[in-house]
Amino acid sequence: MSQWIVDVMGDGFGQATQVDDLLYDHQSPYQRVQVAASARFGRMLVLDDAVQTTERDEYVYHEMLVHVPLVSHPAPRRILIIGGGDGGTLEEALKHPVQSVTMVEIDGEVVEVSRRFLPGISGGAFDDPRTRLRIEDGVAFVRATTERFDAILVDSTDPKGPGIALFSEEFYRACAGILTPSGVLAAQSGSPLHQRSLMEGISRHLSAVFPIVAPYWGAVPAYPGTLWSFTFASAATDPRPSPDEVFRRISSRGLGPLRYYSPGAHHAAFALPSVP
Amino acid sequence: MSQWIVDVMGDGFGQATQVDDLLYDHQSPYQRVQVAASARFGRMLVLDDAVQTTERDEYVYHEMLVHVPLVSHPAPRRILIIGGGDGGTLEEALKHPVQSVTMVEIDGEVVEVSRRFLPGISGGAFDDPRTRLRIEDGVAFVRATTERFDAILVDSTDPKGPGIALFSEEFYRACAGILTPSGVLAAQSGSPLHQRSLMEGISRHLSAVFPIVAPYWGAVPAYPGTLWSFTFASAATDPRPSPDEVFRRISSRGLGPLRYYSPGAHHAAFALPSVP
Repeated sequence: MSQWIVDVMGDGFGQATQVDDLLYDHQSPYQRVQVAASARFGRMLVLDDAVQTTERDEYVYHEMLVHVPLVSHPAPRRILIIGGGDGGTLEEALKHPVQSVTMVEIDGEVVEVSRRFLPGISGGAFDDPRTRLRIEDGVAFVRATTERFDAILVDSTDPKGPGIALFSEEFYRACAGILTPSGVLAAQSGSPLHQRSLMEGISRHLSAVFPIVAPYWGAVPAYPGTLWSFTFASAATDPRPSPDEVFRRISSRGLGPLRYYSPGAHHAAFALPSVP
Repeated sequence: MSQWIVDVMGDGFGQATQVDDLLYDHQSPYQRVQVAASARFGRMLVLDDAVQTTERDEYVYHEMLVHVPLVSHPAPRRILIIGGGDGGTLEEALKHPVQSVTMVEIDGEVVEVSRRFLPGISGGAFDDPRTRLRIEDGVAFVRATTERFDAILVDSTDPKGPGIALFSEEFYRACAGILTPSGVLAAQSGSPLHQRSLMEGISRHLSAVFPIVAPYWGAVPAYPGTLWSFTFASAATDPRPSPDEVFRRISSRGLGPLRYYSPGAHHAAFALPSVP
């Protein structure tokens, strides 16, 4: 069997990856969950026809979503992940000397399928004693919790299906309410090439709540157009410590092994290429 | 009419752009020449099913192929372009205070079609008195000419059809022989994601001839995977003058308007993202 998985963006643009085998295909209560095997990217997790992560390039997305905000924070101890069912964000967050990482994923089937078919992406992170996994609605959790966090990482799907509420100003305001004073937030914010209005909307909504907002990018070949954006937000913490300070924090926290993130990558990420 | 143009790479990866109209479609003596109209990228020049350039994003490719090497050179006066039939490289080169730009394109039909359907890409450059257009084989020209050039810009197609000889060590050696002592060369060198072996082969062949070889990149959304590589080569000229010196040269040469290239972009381009 050989077929193509096509990620179509709304602007007459699509990216196609040839897959040799479909290992899993099931409609969960929230979305269609698929795992496909490709020569180019290894195994791929696909939700509602959009590639979420792959064995070959997952490290780019997860390192950039996690280390840019956590290294910007001088001492992150309590982390909250919203979404992130594949466990890659969890694995990267646990590389920091944290007390706990609470992960709130709405769709338990994504966690189960990822642990079964893509175990290398979480790399044992689900079994870490610091991990607190909750299968429930992240929006409701943020609204109800009395806990406080040093960092919130919003590892969502596209703004459709279960993820749509994770892009609203109301959600960001609730996030601000459960962050410590120097707390940081980072969210995946779509393609800077093919979802420009999404990315700009996220910045606008975050700016209504946080005085410091900064989009940044990484190169994720499995995503349409490769360039992918994230957006950093905080009430008080600057996302650009000096390269030397970034290096010191990487060293002193014993982060690693890292494959994409570095002091240079941290700073280069805030210069988005000027493309139409 | 609505259909998709699909750029398939050899590694099970493709990029698709929806087109609304096919304005030109003809087999020249060298290749299939098409012009298509798309909502995403405007009009597109397509050669042998590979997108070459588009109205919307041509400036990224052309600014990076031209200004990185020409700004690296302290005073480029005589320029040679191999290929580049659409005229975008010519237009950018003429922004420098050059004496002449010799452009050797094998396929006159590409020049004619580009001038007719994509006049904004060359912007009158074909009518500049400093332009010397020759419709002939670039490899034969380089081998035979007694002229000497300060810069050679290799603006080729993929290594198939008429472009294949432009990727050989023999061709690069002939180029080295017609460069002035501080002369510089830059070549488009394929996708760093999906044509890695091509890009590495170009670096290897150039390194057999030139002591200074440095790949760099730009973000061209119409190309498969967006990230695109170029490779700089020289016997004596460093491709990384300081950002202040880059700024001084941009200013003193009156370059502009520029939309992608800048002192920051020049330097960032030499840091290729660490992606698989």
